[in-house]
Amino acid sequence: MLKINNNFFDINQKYLFSEIRQIIRQKKSKNIKLIDMSIGDISLPIDQNIIKALHKAVDEMGDINNFKGYSPDQGYIFLRESIKQKYLKLKIKLNLSEIFISDGSKSDLSNILEIFSDQNIVGIQSISYPVYYDSCKLGGYQICFIRSCKENNFLPSPEDIIGPKPDLIYLCSPNNPTGMAYNTEQLKNWVDFALKNNIIIFYDSAYQDFIKQKDIPYTIYQIKDAKNCAIEFCSFSKSAGFTGLRCGYTIFPDEIILKINNKNINLNKLWARRQSTKFNGVSYLSQVAANEFLKNNNNLKYIKHCDANSKKIIKYLDNNLKQKYWGGVNSPYIWLETKNNLKSKDYFKYLINNYNIITTPGIGFGKDAEGFVRISNFFNI
Amino acid sequence: MLKINNNFFDINQKYLFSEIRQIIRQKKSKNIKLIDMSIGDISLPIDQNIIKALHKAVDEMGDINNFKGYSPDQGYIFLRESIKQKYLKLKIKLNLSEIFISDGSKSDLSNILEIFSDQNIVGIQSISYPVYYDSCKLGGYQICFIRSCKENNFLPSPEDIIGPKPDLIYLCSPNNPTGMAYNTEQLKNWVDFALKNNIIIFYDSAYQDFIKQKDIPYTIYQIKDAKNCAIEFCSFSKSAGFTGLRCGYTIFPDEIILKINNKNINLNKLWARRQSTKFNGVSYLSQVAANEFLKNNNNLKYIKHCDANSKKIIKYLDNNLKQKYWGGVNSPYIWLETKNNLKSKDYFKYLINNYNIITTPGIGFGKDAEGFVRISNFFNI
Repeated sequence: MLKINNNFFDINQKYLFSEIRQIIRQKKSKNIKLIDMSIGDISLPIDQNIIKALHKAVDEMGDINNFKGYSPDQGYIFLRESIKQKYLKLKIKLNLSEIFISDGSKSDLSNILEIFSDQNIVGIQSISYPVYYDSCKLGGYQICFIRSCKENNFLPSPEDIIGPKPDLIYLCSPNNPTGMAYNTEQLKNWVDFALKNNIIIFYDSAYQDFIKQKDIPYTIYQIKDAKNCAIEFCSFSKSAGFTGLRCGYTIFPDEIILKINNKNINLNKLWARRQSTKFNGVSYLSQVAANEFLKNNNNLKYIKHCDANSKKIIKYLDNNLKQKYWGGVNSPYIWLETKNNLKSKDYFKYLINNYNIITTPGIGFGKDAEGFVRISNFFNI
Repeated sequence: MLKINNNFFDINQKYLFSEIRQIIRQKKSKNIKLIDMSIGDISLPIDQNIIKALHKAVDEMGDINNFKGYSPDQGYIFLRESIKQKYLKLKIKLNLSEIFISDGSKSDLSNILEIFSDQNIVGIQSISYPVYYDSCKLGGYQICFIRSCKENNFLPSPEDIIGPKPDLIYLCSPNNPTGMAYNTEQLKNWVDFALKNNIIIFYDSAYQDFIKQKDIPYTIYQIKDAKNCAIEFCSFSKSAGFTGLRCGYTIFPDEIILKINNKNINLNKLWARRQSTKFNGVSYLSQVAANEFLKNNNNLKYIKHCDANSKKIIKYLDNNLKQKYWGGVNSPYIWLETKNNLKSKDYFKYLINNYNIITTPGIGFGKDAEGFVRISNFFNI
């Protein structure tokens, strides 16, 4: 008899966001101009040098001598070579076989679970990007939480793991939604813990280009031996404004080995097999665009735009509000405590009614996120 | 303790294709010009009207007033509306919520399993696109085979199911690799069988634009009540030459309902939830290109090109070879019996050595495919 995946009943049905959308629609129907500080989408067009490269690539697609069919499974060599060079500048050596071009980090962050048994326990911070939790639930993986809270400055350490020891751990730094980023010592704690306990870290590095402070690692591989235990997920969405073009990449080091019955299993090969079976590569145009972005180190206009917004918001918060906040420095996000202990949804309503500002209620990011809202600084006014 | 997904050991490690690639490399190193009739990739550039639409879309992405960020989860309304209109011409009514834009049919054909319990039995034709088998294996689903063979003209019916009754069935028509297509009566048999037995059909319709004969349904929804039991997977890869651009779509009818504890579960909603959790939409550029393709019904140059190739090959086969073959009419593929009962890999070697032609050995498509090779007519010489 046909049976569905019952895990679908264990995940939130997105009522919160439907409700939010309804409130926004009501406001807009009254011609109220709202400032959208909720979504992490871009608010500026793609850079002209990338537009130029895209036009050239489009012409190639229409030319009998230059059009492109299927991309190589893992992505074009030219793009993987540029990524290799980017890491080499940080003194990190990668083989091209360790680089997988993706259609954005979200898919890979979710699909990576497939190469692991659903008998594993997955550690997730109690305040986090909902994709981790939902993907684990849908795949039938047991979850253990890592407590993220004011007391640990929203930068939990291995000591904050609640319950049984996990086999796999999602970390995100700079963090979505809290905007906080691990420094070298803190991240080293996690890597050492993973190495000691045979844990693999899924390191969501989608916001790495927002890092400004010197002691914050740009990639987890700046931590000694992290290539033995960490898979890094990166994106061009926020730094190059590619939310509409779709391109990212995943670093899966060859050093991640699992010993089974005295045989060394190279997990990179399993991921390669998963991708060649279930994925058909990224649009040539998006790969050309990503490569053009990497060739120009100075065009981080999206980052600068967000940073300018963050500074304005922080100045306002410092001068006018008495609530505490976190983030906003190495991240596009500010994590704001609600006023008078309001529930996050009520404070969301307060902000939209009194300031015409749309935020994201914390509760969308986990139960420990109640009492906070996320301010996203991608807006353009 | 960290455990991997052991199902990875149950799937073919692609040694066959590595071996094939090595043979091809050897030939090429000797400067032998080969005709590639193996891969299903395009051999012509994208149509100029699509190129023009792409240039316009690229300019939009660079324009402050017109750039696009995240696509709506299920794809842009403009593209889904065009698909709706396409089906309406065939007298099939679709709601926009039933249309999901994908990055090609492969991902969805594989990911669709996720909304179903791994306790289901999945029926797969014993000669088929390897993605079905590999995806089922990786997901831990039990497989039952549906015997595809000369005796049933490679168009198996429900009577050809071997073993226990399946809960889910993959069908592909026009078929990859055999090139054969179900007529209305044959497809109606499957739909009636599915309806009677509460089975859901995954209908791979990636080659629908190659259909020429009048009695071959263009979509499964031309069969009465198929909307109650079939999900259709379509692609722009072959008909519009989009293997490098990545765009397809999936029709998931609202009528597919599962009764659980007297509650009706609308499976379309589960798929929508899966997609919004694990997928971030298709590049705006690819969606614009797909829409432009749909606006021009007459630009099926890829199809015409393949058909001309097929005719040449069939003429040669008829006049010079004594082997039997199938397909080549409503499909880009010809399914050729090997000479003197040669194993498919040996006949592959024979063809490359004597004719400089690269084909695909049948064995790559399942054990019942031994003794055949697939000729793909996308080549351009």
